[in-house]
Amino acid sequence: MNPDSFAMRPIGVVRSPYTDTAQIPKGPGATHEAEGVLEILPTLERGLTDIDGFSHLYVLWVFDRAAGYDLVGTPPTDRRPHGVFATRSPRRPNAIGLTVVRLVRREGSRLVVQGVDMLDGTPILDIKPYLSSVPPEQLRRGWLAEAERAAEASASDNNAA
Amino acid sequence: MNPDSFAMRPIGVVRSPYTDTAQIPKGPGATHEAEGVLEILPTLERGLTDIDGFSHLYVLWVFDRAAGYDLVGTPPTDRRPHGVFATRSPRRPNAIGLTVVRLVRREGSRLVVQGVDMLDGTPILDIKPYLSSVPPEQLRRGWLAEAERAAEASASDNNAA
Repeated sequence: MNPDSFAMRPIGVVRSPYTDTAQIPKGPGATHEAEGVLEILPTLERGLTDIDGFSHLYVLWVFDRAAGYDLVGTPPTDRRPHGVFATRSPRRPNAIGLTVVRLVRREGSRLVVQGVDMLDGTPILDIKPYLSSVPPEQLRRGWLAEAERAAEASASDNNAA
Repeated sequence: MNPDSFAMRPIGVVRSPYTDTAQIPKGPGATHEAEGVLEILPTLERGLTDIDGFSHLYVLWVFDRAAGYDLVGTPPTDRRPHGVFATRSPRRPNAIGLTVVRLVRREGSRLVVQGVDMLDGTPILDIKPYLSSVPPEQLRRGWLAEAERAAEASASDNNAA
């Protein structure tokens, strides 16, 4: 039998240029180029051994400033509501965020990375090597692809007007 | 200030052909083609709205049969030890697993998927859409690429012998 709940403890904290969610690029075409630092607890530094060889990392973290969840909600990328598990909404049953970052360099227990979309001070739960990709020709992106096409068509209408 | 700990509650359970970790393919060249089912709690079914449009999903889950962690360990893919955050070892400070699966079909609150590498009964914490890939030419895979080359060279030596 599974227990009702699992306790997760931060292994470190994100240093990012963002102090407010409004500053984080969102919506169609948003790119995450911001540099940040993953400050891992010095007591866990040995766990970073050999991480330098990987170009990209998964970061698992906590949406610690979100409270509660919605099973269905309208993301910033669309006008239509979608199920929470089909979005990256912070208001999820377990408020875990997942970001792929590029590892720029390691400085002891600090990882300098590019591509952060977390708020400054965000607790980190785990770091894993990014090992493989789904080939682009096999990837379907559901409602998001449709929303992006609609946004592009709308931008092109505005340009024409 | 961050709290010391975050409580995570399962949103469902994995049904998989694996009842023992020894049955799960590991090591260089291991592929995960096994079909399984993500059984989401019926009370959360609305959260799956529109998930059908995505070809691939991230599944976050708990290594619920692992206890404790090692900062450095030798993975099945290599003979050399590596830091836990540079591996997918189950023995991690927060025992969270991450798997990319292909969504075959949805049946109400059940997601039939391909590519499970979890044990039957594994608690699921979250599901997210897989939205983009790191282009292959930008991906470096550190010690794992070296270990795979060594394994290939060794296999080729054996074939020649």
